[in-house]
Amino acid sequence: MANKPDLWKTPAQEALRWVRGTDLDGLDQGAKPGWAGKRSDGKALQEALAPELADLQERLFAHGRTGGDRAVLLVLQGLDTAGKGGIVRHVVGMVDPQGVMHRGFGVPTEEEREHGYLWRIRNALPRPGYLGAFDRSHYEQVLVVRVDGLEPEKTWREHYRELNEFEAEVAAAGTVIVKVALFVSADEQKKRLAARLERPDKHWKYDPGDIEVLRKRAQYLAAYQEMLDRTSTEVAPWYAVPADRKWYARLAVTELLTGALRSLDLGWPPAGFDVEAEKKRLAAS
Amino acid sequence: MANKPDLWKTPAQEALRWVRGTDLDGLDQGAKPGWAGKRSDGKALQEALAPELADLQERLFAHGRTGGDRAVLLVLQGLDTAGKGGIVRHVVGMVDPQGVMHRGFGVPTEEEREHGYLWRIRNALPRPGYLGAFDRSHYEQVLVVRVDGLEPEKTWREHYRELNEFEAEVAAAGTVIVKVALFVSADEQKKRLAARLERPDKHWKYDPGDIEVLRKRAQYLAAYQEMLDRTSTEVAPWYAVPADRKWYARLAVTELLTGALRSLDLGWPPAGFDVEAEKKRLAAS
Repeated sequence: MANKPDLWKTPAQEALRWVRGTDLDGLDQGAKPGWAGKRSDGKALQEALAPELADLQERLFAHGRTGGDRAVLLVLQGLDTAGKGGIVRHVVGMVDPQGVMHRGFGVPTEEEREHGYLWRIRNALPRPGYLGAFDRSHYEQVLVVRVDGLEPEKTWREHYRELNEFEAEVAAAGTVIVKVALFVSADEQKKRLAARLERPDKHWKYDPGDIEVLRKRAQYLAAYQEMLDRTSTEVAPWYAVPADRKWYARLAVTELLTGALRSLDLGWPPAGFDVEAEKKRLAAS
Repeated sequence: MANKPDLWKTPAQEALRWVRGTDLDGLDQGAKPGWAGKRSDGKALQEALAPELADLQERLFAHGRTGGDRAVLLVLQGLDTAGKGGIVRHVVGMVDPQGVMHRGFGVPTEEEREHGYLWRIRNALPRPGYLGAFDRSHYEQVLVVRVDGLEPEKTWREHYRELNEFEAEVAAAGTVIVKVALFVSADEQKKRLAARLERPDKHWKYDPGDIEVLRKRAQYLAAYQEMLDRTSTEVAPWYAVPADRKWYARLAVTELLTGALRSLDLGWPPAGFDVEAEKKRLAAS
């Protein structure tokens, strides 16, 4: 499969990158932008990418262990059932857990509320050498906070600038930021919520509040539209990923993550000691 | 393979559990206690256990999400090259990274040194619902600290009692503790260090200080002996795992972890809402 690069007619990076001013209403959540293959081809390619992804992640980790300052941060946003958790499990789960810093952001705790909204985000940023994965993120401050009116408009509007400045700072410190917004159709979202109600082993994933979010879909999409338009920057671009087909979303994020790691162009760190001398010391010990 | 339980002549839990007073010098690091199968059987069984391990871990996670207080903590100790990292990658890596809290403990940082040695440990304990994995741990306080004379004997000797009390408290709060000490032979350790020197992609894993540790092997084994004897308790037993055969060590820890999760006997959490009423609300929305 790795020998069929032509299945991507347009690389995921290009096909999915948000173009300011695009109308989010026009996004087909069942589409597979850039991809010409079938589901089975997609699953096979994702599996074929696993060794490279793991190798690149290990180079990043080695780099961090030897004084390097690079890191990668995957930011996942999406409405309930959009598949954020599945991406963590099936994509982030492809690499060594030793090198992963995963963090899910829910309703802020009491302690978190005593600080600015970026406090808990800063605390969770990947250290050098790590792959960070945020399931929800600082962007909730212009999504749920806006839709539920938790702050006056004047306040949440200021966040766009703050978010861009924050990410510029994180990027300047050495972290490659990959922001993924997953979009499911209303029908698919309803179907997935219904499935959680049908299966007792999925009840714990269901929250009666999910229906309110479903009802506020239009307001959420408006908030996403503005978020994408205002915070997709050169150093921290957004990728809008149609997510009705789980396999496509996972393949796409695998490509985006692999691309981000490739862009670091990291070799193995040179030895910080005299290799031949150490061989002799070891043989003599 | 899951249908060949007879390959474990004695369950790993039983075959590996530390028996106070056993002479650690008599441990054969190349042995496969309890296991009657071949390497290929072991690899196949480990793979066959993956779905059950993932299912059990998800139940634990669901339990934590719905107010439960149970957690599992895997503590890994072992000399350099014993394979702690491989266990994290290949065993802990079998479950959803969303439910894992992994932490590697190195030389304490300046901030960590300002607190007692259990401070950083407490901060890294798995929250309810999580599988915690410690690569090195609070036990360094009776291992490297003892061998390198970083504290007077009177001080580190007090730690045995403190460690037991600490773990009794953690266990009482709902966490199942599985402590694994991995043992490689001197020959295998030297071979693995030599391999790190041979391969440029492994140089970053090598530290000239590793040779000092190799030279202090006897002192380390004495420290391990006393640690095992004094801190293997009913609520937090030690398992001594021969680790010259990586596949055996990984299989054994997979069994220990699966057993710990099975012992929680967790079903899926009951719905905290009226399922039929929610189905109607959803259909109407």
